[in-house]
Amino acid sequence: MTQAPPRGFPDDEYQQRCALAQTKLAELQLDALFVCTEPEVRYFTGFHTPFWQSPTRPWFVIVPAVGEPIAIIPSIGAPMMDETWISDIRTWSAPQPEDDGVSILADTITSLGLARIGVPMGHETHLRMPLADWNALQAAVPDVTFSDATDIVRSMRMVKSDRELAKTAHVCSLVSDGFENLGSLLSMGMTEREAFTAFKIDLLQRGADDVPYLVGASGHSFTDVIKQPSDRVIEAGDLLMFDTGTMWDGYSSDFDRYYAFGHADDDAQRAHHVVWDATEAGLNMLRPGVTTTDLWKAMADVMIEGGSLGNDVGRLGHGLGMQLTEWPSNTATDETVIEEGMVLTLEPGMTFAPGRMMLHEENIVIRADGPEMLSRRAPRDMPVIG
Amino acid sequence: MTQAPPRGFPDDEYQQRCALAQTKLAELQLDALFVCTEPEVRYFTGFHTPFWQSPTRPWFVIVPAVGEPIAIIPSIGAPMMDETWISDIRTWSAPQPEDDGVSILADTITSLGLARIGVPMGHETHLRMPLADWNALQAAVPDVTFSDATDIVRSMRMVKSDRELAKTAHVCSLVSDGFENLGSLLSMGMTEREAFTAFKIDLLQRGADDVPYLVGASGHSFTDVIKQPSDRVIEAGDLLMFDTGTMWDGYSSDFDRYYAFGHADDDAQRAHHVVWDATEAGLNMLRPGVTTTDLWKAMADVMIEGGSLGNDVGRLGHGLGMQLTEWPSNTATDETVIEEGMVLTLEPGMTFAPGRMMLHEENIVIRADGPEMLSRRAPRDMPVIG
Repeated sequence: MTQAPPRGFPDDEYQQRCALAQTKLAELQLDALFVCTEPEVRYFTGFHTPFWQSPTRPWFVIVPAVGEPIAIIPSIGAPMMDETWISDIRTWSAPQPEDDGVSILADTITSLGLARIGVPMGHETHLRMPLADWNALQAAVPDVTFSDATDIVRSMRMVKSDRELAKTAHVCSLVSDGFENLGSLLSMGMTEREAFTAFKIDLLQRGADDVPYLVGASGHSFTDVIKQPSDRVIEAGDLLMFDTGTMWDGYSSDFDRYYAFGHADDDAQRAHHVVWDATEAGLNMLRPGVTTTDLWKAMADVMIEGGSLGNDVGRLGHGLGMQLTEWPSNTATDETVIEEGMVLTLEPGMTFAPGRMMLHEENIVIRADGPEMLSRRAPRDMPVIG
Repeated sequence: MTQAPPRGFPDDEYQQRCALAQTKLAELQLDALFVCTEPEVRYFTGFHTPFWQSPTRPWFVIVPAVGEPIAIIPSIGAPMMDETWISDIRTWSAPQPEDDGVSILADTITSLGLARIGVPMGHETHLRMPLADWNALQAAVPDVTFSDATDIVRSMRMVKSDRELAKTAHVCSLVSDGFENLGSLLSMGMTEREAFTAFKIDLLQRGADDVPYLVGASGHSFTDVIKQPSDRVIEAGDLLMFDTGTMWDGYSSDFDRYYAFGHADDDAQRAHHVVWDATEAGLNMLRPGVTTTDLWKAMADVMIEGGSLGNDVGRLGHGLGMQLTEWPSNTATDETVIEEGMVLTLEPGMTFAPGRMMLHEENIVIRADGPEMLSRRAPRDMPVIG
């Protein structure tokens, strides 16, 4: 495992983000950016809590084209927001269904004279406030135009700072250790549920903050790759897939591994070679300037050559950072130009026989001269346990 | 710990939910209910995966006023949805930003002849799809009216079935065991982070599926009650607060406990007595027919009498079930009539000295003759560790 980097970010990390957002706001002739989701609020303020799991209260941040961000939040969050670099914090006692922050938000917009506000409305974004409240806000400030500002957050969040990269690298290193140790943790005769719990506990003991995402499957044949564990007993000849999004200081890993128990059947071992080779093909062509579509094609070609019967996942990897999956997507049509500082997962997957799915996923960062591994490269031969 | 109930639900649990939703749709003269969030999709279908943590893909379910629900989902979810009671499953290969399920959704609405569609738009609801896609959907079916149907899901989800209650009771029992054992797990000299990790691992070892929510604080004084752990070392004279939402088979507990290390100072111990007595006052008056406002007042009166300096949390407990917090809220103005089968948390909280917050939370279910504990009642004296 790598040495853990410092927790949190110094204020200048957030100041740089806001300055860049303000440059982009000026280009788009917008007066402000409005955000209300967990990653977006955290990205601009540093406000970081699992309390977002409660759907009750909305949280708002305005990044004006000039000046510092304003947090408009329920009073329960004030002590935490006070610890961040944000100094303009406006609160109300939520929940108040009849007016849950809408008036204070509208008053802020009006008093700042904001006329054109950008809001993330595009792919992979959500509006985390009740739709009725969104409509009420628009009615309360009828002269204000709200337009799509997805590109601002998308373009900014896709390119990671060195400080962000250090967090992702750390959690990927820790999870790599966990995967490499799996043979000593698991054995035939365990149930899926026991195996999942053992791995989760092992990752926590290695220093992970949390393992919010652990899915997988076991057996000779499976196609469901977003599944929670069952009480199925793992037997000789089984494959086991683990796909985990493990977190450290608010940054996620997302890579999966396949293991065989007792022995690996020839078809599965061959399929493992194909997806490993597809990953290798991606690694070999990745550099700033190529597109996600080029990357998709490099991996897809190897799998077609290797006898793929198709893939229902919809993409061959994606961005990674504060969330388990982020922009962009490695698809046939995505066409995002890959830049230095992007973190991607390479996730070739294919149905290699009827009812049998094989996935493989590595995490990398794009450097000036090509990819740098964040996950530790899996072996080409699928490991056999027991 | 209680004996674990069966996992999942038999089909008739979902059939009853849909039948009740259809009765309510008829009352409101709506042709269908449209849902797109994790708990709502799971509530009507049984589709259960942590894959919702990926923000990339939208998921849609239509419950028509007559007939069976229709799932319109990314193909990656088809194997899992196939395992549920849903038979009408329509898929597309997501992500496809240019049309991520909007056409197939619009086509379904049109082919079914749906003219009036209810959508949860009110308090505690979100629209989990890009706002631009929501606008595109409305443009694609211009003759369809979408109106607020929050009351349908709110009124249904607030009253739990016996099968749901068994899951909540099981996880509450398991977490009660964990809290009662905390004295043997924690000690002075540990950091907050070590203490949090030890408790998380302990809960997993006791059979919890996951511990997605664990927040708290330590020290003589704190007011931030939604905080993640720091590297602060726990010392003699400290208070420790743990608030956890632990999950079992998709149902959550949510109760917190305070502990003192070495000794409890008089002010803190007195405050613990006050919030415990406030909980007791709530338990003593709870029965079907009283309101959340009556409940709030019963608890608030005890805290005012006990010297409360206020409370920034905004409510004194809330509903509980598939999510960490659900409708209703125990506030001065909520006025929800409490019914048999509702699960509530009683969470009196108060600032008992400047900068010092005390919370106390129990989980109960309302039976015909009053409340039944789901969490095991905490002792009135704050436990002292070490």
